[in-house]
Amino acid sequence: MSYGYNGKILRVDLSSGAISVDEPDEGFYRHYVGGRGLVSYFLLRELASGIEPLGPENKLVFANGALTGVPVAGSGRNSVGAKSPLTGGYGDAEVGGYWGAELKLAGYDAIIVEGESERPVYLWIEDGKAEIKDARHLWGKTTGECEKLIRKELGDRGIRVAQIGIAGENQVRYACVINDISHAAGRTGMGAVMGSKKLKAIAVRGHQKVALSDARAVNSLARQFRDWLKINRSAVNLSENGTAGGLMALNTASGLPTRNFQEGVFEGAEKISGEAINENILVGRRGCYACPIRCKPEVATKKPYNVDPTYGGPEYETLAALGSNCGIDNLEAIAKGSELCNAYGLDTISTGACIAFAMECFEQGILTEQDTDGLKLNFGNAEAMLKLVEMIARGEGIGMVLAHGVARAAVAFGNGAEEFAMHVKGQEIPMHEPRYKQALGVGYTISPTGADHCHNIHDTAYTDRIPGDLRALGVFQPLPSQELSAAKVRMLVYGSNWQHVLNCLVFCQFVPLRPGQIIDLVRGVTGWDTNIWELMKVGERCIAMARAFNIREGMGRSEDHLPRRFFIPFTSGPLEGISLDDGEMYRAIDTYYAMVGWDGDGAPTLAKLQELGIEWVADLF
Amino acid sequence: MSYGYNGKILRVDLSSGAISVDEPDEGFYRHYVGGRGLVSYFLLRELASGIEPLGPENKLVFANGALTGVPVAGSGRNSVGAKSPLTGGYGDAEVGGYWGAELKLAGYDAIIVEGESERPVYLWIEDGKAEIKDARHLWGKTTGECEKLIRKELGDRGIRVAQIGIAGENQVRYACVINDISHAAGRTGMGAVMGSKKLKAIAVRGHQKVALSDARAVNSLARQFRDWLKINRSAVNLSENGTAGGLMALNTASGLPTRNFQEGVFEGAEKISGEAINENILVGRRGCYACPIRCKPEVATKKPYNVDPTYGGPEYETLAALGSNCGIDNLEAIAKGSELCNAYGLDTISTGACIAFAMECFEQGILTEQDTDGLKLNFGNAEAMLKLVEMIARGEGIGMVLAHGVARAAVAFGNGAEEFAMHVKGQEIPMHEPRYKQALGVGYTISPTGADHCHNIHDTAYTDRIPGDLRALGVFQPLPSQELSAAKVRMLVYGSNWQHVLNCLVFCQFVPLRPGQIIDLVRGVTGWDTNIWELMKVGERCIAMARAFNIREGMGRSEDHLPRRFFIPFTSGPLEGISLDDGEMYRAIDTYYAMVGWDGDGAPTLAKLQELGIEWVADLF
Repeated sequence: MSYGYNGKILRVDLSSGAISVDEPDEGFYRHYVGGRGLVSYFLLRELASGIEPLGPENKLVFANGALTGVPVAGSGRNSVGAKSPLTGGYGDAEVGGYWGAELKLAGYDAIIVEGESERPVYLWIEDGKAEIKDARHLWGKTTGECEKLIRKELGDRGIRVAQIGIAGENQVRYACVINDISHAAGRTGMGAVMGSKKLKAIAVRGHQKVALSDARAVNSLARQFRDWLKINRSAVNLSENGTAGGLMALNTASGLPTRNFQEGVFEGAEKISGEAINENILVGRRGCYACPIRCKPEVATKKPYNVDPTYGGPEYETLAALGSNCGIDNLEAIAKGSELCNAYGLDTISTGACIAFAMECFEQGILTEQDTDGLKLNFGNAEAMLKLVEMIARGEGIGMVLAHGVARAAVAFGNGAEEFAMHVKGQEIPMHEPRYKQALGVGYTISPTGADHCHNIHDTAYTDRIPGDLRALGVFQPLPSQELSAAKVRMLVYGSNWQHVLNCLVFCQFVPLRPGQIIDLVRGVTGWDTNIWELMKVGERCIAMARAFNIREGMGRSEDHLPRRFFIPFTSGPLEGISLDDGEMYRAIDTYYAMVGWDGDGAPTLAKLQELGIEWVADLF
Repeated sequence: MSYGYNGKILRVDLSSGAISVDEPDEGFYRHYVGGRGLVSYFLLRELASGIEPLGPENKLVFANGALTGVPVAGSGRNSVGAKSPLTGGYGDAEVGGYWGAELKLAGYDAIIVEGESERPVYLWIEDGKAEIKDARHLWGKTTGECEKLIRKELGDRGIRVAQIGIAGENQVRYACVINDISHAAGRTGMGAVMGSKKLKAIAVRGHQKVALSDARAVNSLARQFRDWLKINRSAVNLSENGTAGGLMALNTASGLPTRNFQEGVFEGAEKISGEAINENILVGRRGCYACPIRCKPEVATKKPYNVDPTYGGPEYETLAALGSNCGIDNLEAIAKGSELCNAYGLDTISTGACIAFAMECFEQGILTEQDTDGLKLNFGNAEAMLKLVEMIARGEGIGMVLAHGVARAAVAFGNGAEEFAMHVKGQEIPMHEPRYKQALGVGYTISPTGADHCHNIHDTAYTDRIPGDLRALGVFQPLPSQELSAAKVRMLVYGSNWQHVLNCLVFCQFVPLRPGQIIDLVRGVTGWDTNIWELMKVGERCIAMARAFNIREGMGRSEDHLPRRFFIPFTSGPLEGISLDDGEMYRAIDTYYAMVGWDGDGAPTLAKLQELGIEWVADLF
């Protein structure tokens, strides 16, 4: 087996209790690498089409990558994937923290969870040994309680836990998997899949070392990167302000989703900004395995809400989702909402989007106090937001409807609610406004996971500068954010492709290393004489596989569209009069398909699958 | 202007005598790089479709690349391009020697020759100055005489000359441009274009230095490469045996074109092998600018022919074209034929192929002694072969017909002669048997220049090992030579693409450096933070441009086919019973088109042009 991998994939069948180990060869790892590459491989290979995402036929894959656990900033990540209960298509999410690295140190590159247990269980992995354990006493517990109990009963405070909260237990369709009680594999409802299998947690402890092909080179790069991150502006900004540091700039540019994406400017933005967090509620910063940046806030408040800093604090997506997009400028309430989402295992993006949707339905008269157990669901009502978080997690009242996501809730509500359901393929739209970042709008549309910000370029600042990853791909010409030319689509294609490389490695997209630096690292770790061409093909391969998964489920071109709202111009703010253009948008989608070798329905062509060395995928259609 | 370039392109209008200089910016050079990249750019931009290749509207482009003239093995090359009088489509050829490097040292990256002079002229370039000079006294001279006369009249023995011989003057459709009297830009009839413009020669002298971004790095690489080439098996073999070194292995494998491609095994192979040259007629070896390999033979004989070593000697293609493919095992005759071709400026491949074609027509009774001025054109008749070389160059008798190439000659001969005309798009097939190297058969078919061995992988040895350039592109699985699977087409796509990178740089494909080494060199020379991805896109870009040129001329899918002979099995030898399969072949072509983003007619799609950053090409259709 190559360096950087253990060569072992743990397979756990919760129906039978059988535990086994797959040992793919090095060629497999070099072809699929890790993260989304492994997830899409196993989901395509092992799931039949049409299966129920919340049934025993679904499989839940936890996957590391070549860089997971390597002692360098950005490597503390893993992927979690399964058929998504939110979209009915390909699902996965990446997550930071320490759990993925611990899994590697425990001897595994991935875990495939199959079947479904009769009663709650958790999985305990220590240095290669794996055991299914009773979790009846953990069921119903918050993530914080659960982690404490597991560490106590196994007698090791160094244990790392990936788990679901009550939202996952209750199969909220956007429940997440939480690492270390504050890092979320948030999107596509992986927590619901875990809940459906009655798998409460995976506890991991490892004492092995990551095998490095050239430890001297890796250590030297690690030192270089550490020094570099100390002075790099973007890294320093992340250290000081976290992802929240960009909120005010977005607001100024009309890029801050406000009141269910009705506007891009929020009058209360300053109150929920990174600066406001730093001044008012910050008590510390934390990060992920081996990372000196420490971009995650720890916040605490006593009044009006008691917010527990062990759950971390709100990042940008959460501030916008529970804040501006709900018209809420109460930072303490947002911090409390963030804590609740982490404690219950809810994706803050979808949760906030569902609440914003309900608020707009309420203001439009589609919902009344009769439907909401008396809650006045007006935009800006922080108390109602917090109440809804609870109701969604517990499946109470209207929360039970919203737990299915805005697309299904809109059908349930009827009366034109669909107009206000801001989603793509059933997944709620994250907190980046596509009228502002128009290429991202295309990215939302074609993403196999539905609206997703982790796999597509954020073209915020491409107006006047080209980021290093695109320069490394031969793209040198900046273009306005409000443009959807073919040249912009090319940026999207190349940029998404590179982001998928990171998602296969599985490496943090916020650590501002250039492709050349990352490739040096991969070479040092694995010993592969690899390069940006080979890795870009890995990225392209896994985009094609994830897309193929959806095609097999019947999700092609007809599912690639954005909510109508984004085609209606802003009526105020700096982008007043600006919207996406239907014609331009659908031309851009056509161009994207053609550039990546997909046919008119968005299915990868046979020749493209062959060129990527995954001809076997064609046999699945 | 970037390092490695002068930033100056000389433009000479022979109709008006006007001389001017284009100064493209660095972005232009980074996008198109050089060689075939520049040639295809200028031909697409500046030629109208449908023009007569031998008329004043055609332009002849001499192009260097980023590495031309850099003091490292492999960098002594340039491209020569124009609309081809042989194919009616895109034409260009690469050539070694010293002339390209001298042009760079004289201050130019390229020369564009336009219009047509009334009387013979030559161009004299010295350190940036350019002058059109009378060449009436040079017209009709051999290349050896012409070079001597020019050096004498300009009073500088260091002058380098690119020129045509009498074949170019007489517009033989496969006349070549000869550098240093022994290096040929052989294919696609560039010498005929030069002759049609009455441009006898371009004499160059430069005393400048190639500007290097990081001279220390380049010098260090140069030293490394020199040491590496001393021990690399392939380089050592080239030093000792030249390209002729592989002839016996090809013969053993049934890959040596014999008697107009009727067979793949020649009973007289040993007599015309590299070993036979070394033992019997070799008097020295020469090479190209800065190259220690020195793979070119110098041969001399007194009897029965007086062969002059200043013209070098036969390389593999010549040995097979004038030898086995004409059924000739007389090494002295082949050496004489090689000398004549260099002295007259004839492409040895097309010349040999035309003679072999005439021989088969003669043996089939399509030609008789009446047609051949009494020559008995049987296979194996060395005297007749030499006589035909003279007749072709001078346009005498049947030579006048053969001077138009096998495709046109077959039409003139009638009586089913077409069956024996071994060409693609009008260009004669080089000396690699496509029933043996089947992916090369696809390469011949889709190549924009017609059958050509310089732009497509030679899959000789891929059966059991994968060469470094394909490994660097993520292709690790060897495949049999007699296979045309999609995986093989992928090798062809990637391999051709990389060969085009070399053709843009313009770097020798025989110098066995790996892509990583070449990229280090490009970075050191240019200062560009480039990589294999960016360069592969350069290669893809210029393939698409050359193809687009042909599409504009109406040459699409219907021109992409091989002669029927290759679909008929060998009747003897180790590949007895083996042929290309029609269905497989055309499926492979479909697959190739789809993999590279061409439509059903083989035209690059709009999206592909956009992805490559050459959207302007679409406006030309």
